[in-house]
Order: sequence, then C-alpha cells, then structure tokens
Amino acid sequence: MIGLSSNAGVMESLMNSAEEQQPSSPPANSWSNQEEINKNETPKCVGGFVLVHAGAGYHSESKAKEYKHVCKRACQRAVDRLKAGALAVEAVAAALVELEDSPFTNAGMGSNLNLSGEIECDASIMDGKSLHYGAVGAISGIKNPVLVANRLLSEAQKGKLSAGRIPPCFLVGRGAHEWAVSHGIPPCPSEKMATKFSLSAYKRNKRKMELAEKMDMGHNHAKKRRQSSETENGSGCLDTVGAVVVDLEGNVAAAVSSGGLAMKHPGRVGQAAHYGCGCWAENAFNNPYSTAVSTSGCGEHLIRTMLARECSAAMQSEDAHKALLEAMQNKFISSPFLASEDRVLGGVIVLRCCRCVEAPPSPNIQGILVEFLWSHTTESMCVGYMSAQDSKAKTHISRLPPGTVPGQCLAIEGGVCRLMSVAE
Amino acid sequence: MIGLSSNAGVMESLMNSAEEQQPSSPPANSWSNQEEINKNETPKCVGGFVLVHAGAGYHSESKAKEYKHVCKRACQRAVDRLKAGALAVEAVAAALVELEDSPFTNAGMGSNLNLSGEIECDASIMDGKSLHYGAVGAISGIKNPVLVANRLLSEAQKGKLSAGRIPPCFLVGRGAHEWAVSHGIPPCPSEKMATKFSLSAYKRNKRKMELAEKMDMGHNHAKKRRQSSETENGSGCLDTVGAVVVDLEGNVAAAVSSGGLAMKHPGRVGQAAHYGCGCWAENAFNNPYSTAVSTSGCGEHLIRTMLARECSAAMQSEDAHKALLEAMQNKFISSPFLASEDRVLGGVIVLRCCRCVEAPPSPNIQGILVEFLWSHTTESMCVGYMSAQDSKAKTHISRLPPGTVPGQCLAIEGGVCRLMSVAE
Repeated sequence: MIGLSSNAGVMESLMNSAEEQQPSSPPANSWSNQEEINKNETPKCVGGFVLVHAGAGYHSESKAKEYKHVCKRACQRAVDRLKAGALAVEAVAAALVELEDSPFTNAGMGSNLNLSGEIECDASIMDGKSLHYGAVGAISGIKNPVLVANRLLSEAQKGKLSAGRIPPCFLVGRGAHEWAVSHGIPPCPSEKMATKFSLSAYKRNKRKMELAEKMDMGHNHAKKRRQSSETENGSGCLDTVGAVVVDLEGNVAAAVSSGGLAMKHPGRVGQAAHYGCGCWAENAFNNPYSTAVSTSGCGEHLIRTMLARECSAAMQSEDAHKALLEAMQNKFISSPFLASEDRVLGGVIVLRCCRCVEAPPSPNIQGILVEFLWSHTTESMCVGYMSAQDSKAKTHISRLPPGTVPGQCLAIEGGVCRLMSVAE
Repeated sequence: MIGLSSNAGVMESLMNSAEEQQPSSPPANSWSNQEEINKNETPKCVGGFVLVHAGAGYHSESKAKEYKHVCKRACQRAVDRLKAGALAVEAVAAALVELEDSPFTNAGMGSNLNLSGEIECDASIMDGKSLHYGAVGAISGIKNPVLVANRLLSEAQKGKLSAGRIPPCFLVGRGAHEWAVSHGIPPCPSEKMATKFSLSAYKRNKRKMELAEKMDMGHNHAKKRRQSSETENGSGCLDTVGAVVVDLEGNVAAAVSSGGLAMKHPGRVGQAAHYGCGCWAENAFNNPYSTAVSTSGCGEHLIRTMLARECSAAMQSEDAHKALLEAMQNKFISSPFLASEDRVLGGVIVLRCCRCVEAPPSPNIQGILVEFLWSHTTESMCVGYMSAQDSKAKTHISRLPPGTVPGQCLAIEGGVCRLMSVAE
C-alpha cells in the first residue's frame, strides 16, 4: 500500500499511525519490485478485495476500538465469501450484514430512532456486472435491510413476474416489510433492534429538541430555523455503513445501509436508498476502469449531489487520487446544489480496478490492479480493507487535520493492491 | 413552431395533423423573419412557456379528446400562474394539479390500483433556480401528491428545523401522509380517488393474473416468468404525467406524478419519486442552457437509466434535436443498464432555453429562446404546450410510425418558441 499524495492546499491526513501502516507496495501499473510474488512458485488463485466503512461523522477515541473491530469483521466476512468463490455482489452483502449487526453503527441493529421513537432503515446494493440495483427505504422490523435490497436485486434479474409485470427495484415502508417476509426474510421485533445506546440518544435528543423549541417561543421564525443546540446528527454522528468489493473475475459491487438521521420524520428516506446517491458499481464495459463507490454522511447533501454516481464517473480519469479530490471539491463541497449549505458533510469509499497492462512475471498469471481511496469532509471516517490474497484486515480512523473546519475541508487517503490469479 | 429534422434511419413522426399545426416560426438564434413582433409597438412583458405530458404509453383514439383536453387545461393553469407573476416552480405545480385531478390519467385521481387494491402515488418536483427538490413515494390518501412534494421543496428552502435537524427532501408511505396533513394538505379518502375505470381495470388485471398463474401450474419457473397474457401495464398503459416550465426570468422547473404500475407490490416506488429519474431542472449557471425534463413510461427502465438527468445533461450540446435523439438511442434504448430488457419503454418531454444572443429589434427588448421536444419509445405519447405570449394551447398525440416496434424505435418531435420581455 502506498499513501497517495495530495494536491497543494488541500488537507490530507496520510496514514501514519504505526498500528495502521502497511508495508509499501509497488507503484501502479508496474510489475517491478513485486515483493509478494515468488517467481519460482505459481501463485494461488486468490480472490478479490474489500473496502468497508463504518460511517463518516464523528468517531470518539473511546469507541475507536469497537469501530475498527466491526470493520475488520466485515472485511473478513466478505473475504470468506470471495474465497468460497462468491461474486462481488454476494461478498458485499456479507460485509454489510456484519456492519448492520453491530450495535455501534447506525444501521440495522442499534439504528437511530426517528421522531416517533421507531427504527426505519434504508439500504441499497448495486451489482457492477449486471448493473442491477435493489433498495429498501423506511423499512421497519427487519434486522438486515441489505438482505432485502439484495433479494430485490436478484429477483429482478430473473425477469418479469406473472402476467408480464415488471419486478420492483425499490420498496418502502410496510410494503417492503411484507415483501421481505413473503420472500423468507424473517421479521425482527423493533424493540430488539434498539440498543441501550440508541434509546438513551433518543431521550437526549428529545430533550434537546424540546428545549430548543421552548427557547424559540416568542422568537421569530427565521431564528427558529437556526439552532445552536443540535441533535446528535447535527454534531456529526452520521455513521451510515457501506462497502465496495472487487472479485477475482474483476466484477465490482457496492452497498450501503443506514438508520438515517436521528429524530428524522417518519417516512424520511435518505441517500442509502437513493439510486446513484448511496452506492454505485459499474464494471468497465466500454470504460477503462470498473468502479464502485459507497457514501456516508448527511443524506440530503449526498442525495442532491448524487455523490456516489458522480465519484464513479470521475474515477474514469487517469489519476485516481486527483480525480476523487476534484470530485469531492467541485461536486460536493463547492457544488451549486448545496450553495445554501454552510457545512457540507459526507464521506465516500471508492474502489477502481483494471487489468494490469504490463507483462506479468509469468505468462499464466493475470493481474487486476485495484486502487482504493476514502475521502470525507466530516471530522472522521472509519474504514477497513482486506485483500483475499493475505487476509490481513487493515483498519483506520481517518480524521481531518486539527484546526480544519468540518464541512469545508476534506481528508483523502488510499492505496493500491494487486490481485493475481492463474490465467485460464 | 418548426418540426425538427430527424437523423437518417430513425423514426420521426413530424407533426402533420392540420388541427395541431402551428404557424412556422423563425429559425433558432435569429431575430430575422420575426413575424410576431410589430416593431412599432413595445412588446408587453409576457411570461413563460409550458410543456406538459399525459403519459407515454398507449392512448386509444376513443379517449384522444379527453387526453388532449386535460393537457390543454394543465397548460392553461400553468400560464395563468405565470401571468400572475409566479415563478416556474409554482407554475409547474399548478399544471400537475390539473393533470392529477383528471380521472383519465394515472396520477392522483384515477391512479392505478396496486396488488392489494390500494392507490399509492409517487411525485416529485425540482426547481432549476434553487436546485431544490422534493418527492413523495407510495403515498396514500392525498389527492394531489405533487403538492406534498412541492411543500417539501419549499420547507427545505427555509433551512434547518429545530435542534439543527436537516429537513427531509423525500418522504414515503404513512409518514409522508402524516407530514402532508400536519402541513395543512387535506387528506382524501382513498375510495374517492379510485374511479369506475381504475376499479374495473383492477378487476380485469386480477383475473388476468389469476389466469396466468393457473396456466403456469405445472410449468417450469422460467416459463412462469414470461407471460403472454399481460396486465394493462404490459400492453402500454403507463400514463404518468408531467410538465416542464420556463418563466419570464428564464428559470426552469420540472415535475412528475404517477399512480405507478397497475398491480404493483404495495410499497413499490417508481421513477416519479426517484431523484434524477422522474424529473430534472437546472438553470444555466455555468452551462450554456437551462434545461428541464420530465419522464414517463416503465418506472424501472427510467430509474436504472436515470433518464431525466441524462437527457438534461445531453441538452447542453449545440443541436437540441440531435442531442435528444442520441440520448434516447444511446442512454435508453441501447443502454447497457437495460441490456437484458427486450422492450425499453419510456418517453420524455424536454425544454431548454437561453438568452437570445443576436441583436433584438429594439434595445429595450430581451428575449429567451425556448426549444422544446418530446420523444418516446412507447406506442404513443400525449403532449400539450402553451406560451404565455399567445395563450393558445396546442395538443398532440404523438405516435410511433405504423409498423415500427414499441420499445425498439422512437418518435421525436419538437419546436421553438421565443419569449420576449421589456428589458429592465
């Protein structure tokens, strides 16, 4: 892995924690210095790479271990699937299940509660190979919303329903719940999905709201709209989760899952269930690169800028780091779609890959060059990644440099990994 | 209005019905032959242009009059608002209310019933000036879903809610209904929204489904997925409605509303509530043209190709007709996102405008050149348009040329209109 250099004038917190540091890897598009390869041995057929995030927002030092741990487990789950021969889309769903099952993330178990004290989740998944997509919005009583999204995707791939009806790609609310149960996904009582932490956060947020509204009594409307006492979303706890995967065949997939903003209105659907906004995956086809993106942060900001698709499109230009940097600057922080926002809060994980163009060390070896990056405007973002080649998860809490302003500056980091397989 | 020429090899049904024919207008970007202007008079401050559609699908000759009539009334409603000084976004909402209120369209009153015999509507609206967006999905018991979408848009423009909460741009299901009612939008009993026509269509569709499923008993799964006996969606009744507007100041707006596919699963959300898929509007800012788009047809096809935004982006190239033709061919009919579909069904209305660049006949006159087009791969599409300048609505049912195959060929038509106002 190499740290990618940043453009002048832009914040970049290169990975420098000893714990997180990986051994330096070869420069892109070159087989020289390929330390991992023993030329006397035929490399094994090794499958794929996964990058996950446990949200762009604010990650306290006190919970850093937990966040890293869940990222590690999610990577492991995806890699286990890849090693078993699964395609990218199955592996990415497996990673999401682990992220959703953690009570520390705002997805599945332990999701934020809405204004009525209920849990309503959003999730989506995209398969870069078939370009199919599945999503659920404001779904209650299902432990793993991503599995419903994934089932919608796979059902749609089977073609039309009876009497020529077109299968849905996006279901919401009660209808989504009923569809899931009728397709064998077990319901989960909502009270089991709330955690001590999410319930106490709800109570704190409710008090804050009541206080804020009381303080506004007698103030004018304009003032009512600008509060200093913010809910815990306002201060940055926007820990949506997601993952991007490339499999041995070079197929990419992406997924995202979220409990949404704390104290959201019932029925509110965030970016995690918005096509092009929460995740995007597209195999190369006529493009030079296959790309996969998953986003996190303030849903409305990510929706209006359609950030996942914008980042995916940007990643077709030559320099991956520069492309993501410019996309985050021009299509997000300085986006005309968010001109009225004072703080633009979000983060992305990005993966792109292509067949290695240079001569491999042995003619029966083919390689896939994977470039992976993350970038965020929030105070922090927790990521993890793993190659099926060495099965060693790396986890990292990326932070904006001290003194910089969340929502106006960004951090960007990443690395390169080469996958090798025996050519057919 | 001029008929725009088509590329060789592509179907184009130019407007040739005597009833619909408009007087020929001057070529784009030129003030020569400007018959409408009497140079001895100062032109009045005249405001805006509207283009509406009552759906891409199949419009029977027997109901042609009704479809045209509702388009005419919708144009009139928008123009009335424009003349009263309303901005584009208000005018486009007014047009949609009229389209939703018609029992003949699949939006608001008379919407398709879902699998459970309920009406669940989708609608969205976008303001090209603020780039704000509002949408509702699978909402029941509201006569005019577009008014809820519009209210979400205008509430979001006011900034944050109490305690720093970010206002939603997309609400679904029961939560959307409750939000609407709490914001003063009256509920409407669902039984009042169903019509004789929608109820009898539901009964017919239910029988067809039961028959199709009975016939499949004993057949294999692959066969079950391909039925010859289709619901009335399958045969093309996909009459979502929409409108695009430019106001006197050159601001654009777009909106769309739909009852969704007949016999859809409860909770299914179609393109009308998908950002970038149902409608798009973007003032020029750094681009040469302001653009507004509204789509209709098979929701899943329009979602996966993100057709509204794709057409909007395409319309920045010089030749409007060629740009839309290529977008419909390459980004829709031949889209890699729909590679597995045998028939790609949809239609768009598009409007783009720019300040006239050539010298006006009088220095105190400024002009906006409006180019408007519609294109569809469905058997027919019903459109109407009106300039506030002459307040004469033109309506038209565009059809694919006889012998061509819906879902594989397209029709494309359009015109040019020049708006004039006294310069400030």
